[in-house]
Amino acid sequence: MVVRGAPAIAVAAALSLAVEVANFKDFNGTSEEAASFIELILEYLVSSRPTAVNLSDAAKKLIEITSNAASTTIMPESVFQAYIEAAEIMLDDDVASNKAIGSYGSRFLQDQRKIVPRFSVLTHCNTGSLATAGYGTALGVICALHAEGVLERAYCTETRPFNQGSRLTAFELVHYKIPATLIADSAAAALMKESRLSAVIVGADHVAANGDTANKIRTYSLALCAMHHHIPFYVAASLSSIDLSLSSGEEIVIEERSAKELLHSRGGLGEQVAASGILVWNPAFDVTPAYLITGIITEKGVITKNNDAFNIKDFVEKAAGKSTA
Amino acid sequence: MVVRGAPAIAVAAALSLAVEVANFKDFNGTSEEAASFIELILEYLVSSRPTAVNLSDAAKKLIEITSNAASTTIMPESVFQAYIEAAEIMLDDDVASNKAIGSYGSRFLQDQRKIVPRFSVLTHCNTGSLATAGYGTALGVICALHAEGVLERAYCTETRPFNQGSRLTAFELVHYKIPATLIADSAAAALMKESRLSAVIVGADHVAANGDTANKIRTYSLALCAMHHHIPFYVAASLSSIDLSLSSGEEIVIEERSAKELLHSRGGLGEQVAASGILVWNPAFDVTPAYLITGIITEKGVITKNNDAFNIKDFVEKAAGKSTA
Repeated sequence: MVVRGAPAIAVAAALSLAVEVANFKDFNGTSEEAASFIELILEYLVSSRPTAVNLSDAAKKLIEITSNAASTTIMPESVFQAYIEAAEIMLDDDVASNKAIGSYGSRFLQDQRKIVPRFSVLTHCNTGSLATAGYGTALGVICALHAEGVLERAYCTETRPFNQGSRLTAFELVHYKIPATLIADSAAAALMKESRLSAVIVGADHVAANGDTANKIRTYSLALCAMHHHIPFYVAASLSSIDLSLSSGEEIVIEERSAKELLHSRGGLGEQVAASGILVWNPAFDVTPAYLITGIITEKGVITKNNDAFNIKDFVEKAAGKSTA
Repeated sequence: MVVRGAPAIAVAAALSLAVEVANFKDFNGTSEEAASFIELILEYLVSSRPTAVNLSDAAKKLIEITSNAASTTIMPESVFQAYIEAAEIMLDDDVASNKAIGSYGSRFLQDQRKIVPRFSVLTHCNTGSLATAGYGTALGVICALHAEGVLERAYCTETRPFNQGSRLTAFELVHYKIPATLIADSAAAALMKESRLSAVIVGADHVAANGDTANKIRTYSLALCAMHHHIPFYVAASLSSIDLSLSSGEEIVIEERSAKELLHSRGGLGEQVAASGILVWNPAFDVTPAYLITGIITEKGVITKNNDAFNIKDFVEKAAGKSTA
């Protein structure tokens, strides 16, 4: 959990391997063996964080690039070089993608309102520059609303048990001088009842083809509460978080984490708080079904519903067409 | 917050004053002045915890008893003695009331099911022997289910920000050897989705005449999530928690607590976790509207709905009739 946030995990993994291969002065194998070496390490990295789809997606692309390079050269150095360049492009793409998410999200929200008001937005967990390589996904939208002068206030949950909200999101909000309030995860429904929110925007670890979204635990109940209070609920995620091979959220693997995060203070780092001998169930993520999600904000625009369903495959294909056109 | 749990606050306040007056050897006033002295202290205690209705209710009764005593004697000692006896009866009544809540709740739940299954129950905050003088309200029902051999498992939330669940409820569950699992408040909806729960049972700080219930923050969203998953949601509370003078939950005063509970670990007692400079909103309670509540388990039986509404006034009047009959 030293590097966290699904997009950051992918970029950090790719770049750390790039640094490693850049320092390889005496690799004794063939170009094919260089490609296999990279593949082996990337597959190991993917197995370490099952819920972050970006990582397996990124690994797949990088493996393809290095394997193509290996087939056109006998120099292992050229394979490594091809890998390094691809990882650097991935970083640049992530920054550009974050900027686009923020900009599309902010524009979309403002377009939803005839009279442009000031928005109050609740976010959960950390999806800012500390979780991505660039400007963040959900927090990127909040930053864009703030930059355009239409943000009234950002609310962030503390995000138990690992406190990503109070430690990281609160830090970023204060750093960007955004008017912001920290609440206990528990206080979100009371906040909605007091009509203080115009939208909830969260990130995603994994989006299935139907729009079901795995994200930090509590996201599902935030979405339920938002629906009950008629507050729009948005997922902000790059297209790399979407996995069209999964028909629904039922197929997403949910990581369970250590009991210690609940038994000890500070997400497991501090002293013991809970009674000895109690069992613990500590799922790190939950799945929010698509019917609770108003829209998915991506770097190619906002995916909305037609007849109560997202057509994500269509959107992704059109977006791919658009970017190569 | 050294003494917490609404029923415990009332009994502890009454008893601590009883200890104080029992040690009065040289009170120099009249019997009327003795009654005024008790009234003054009780009113001060009531003003300290606005959300706990039991306390103001208990204080009102004790003031009446001492004032009646003062009108029949000129001896201040007799007034003090009348007060001490009344406070002791209050303690006995609380223990008996808790036992009755557990027993009525357990019987009612079992009657709801044709084939008696084993129950898995989620509770929130602490409502056990550490929050009441006796056996607890919501936790009393869980203990009764366990004693009758029909409890599969109790789940308790950690109850942020002050961790009453992980510190106190987990402790009691382990102590009573009840099969139990601690979860983050955040994980409750995921638990419901996995169909692991047969009921949610919580306590109450304050119940309005229409059944709207103020309880520890997060209770409202637990009730919303329970409704969505068709899981019955019960409030377990003694009749002293019901305030017929409030027509709805809108009138219940909600206590806001210190930002430090969120900024520092261990509910404010540990080291700083959150970013400096972030604002905090920390309401201690929220109000769960009656339409989300399946039933209210009291020491006189379970209040259920007729035509989607509780008739609490009727129930309370009949219960009062029953007990004097």
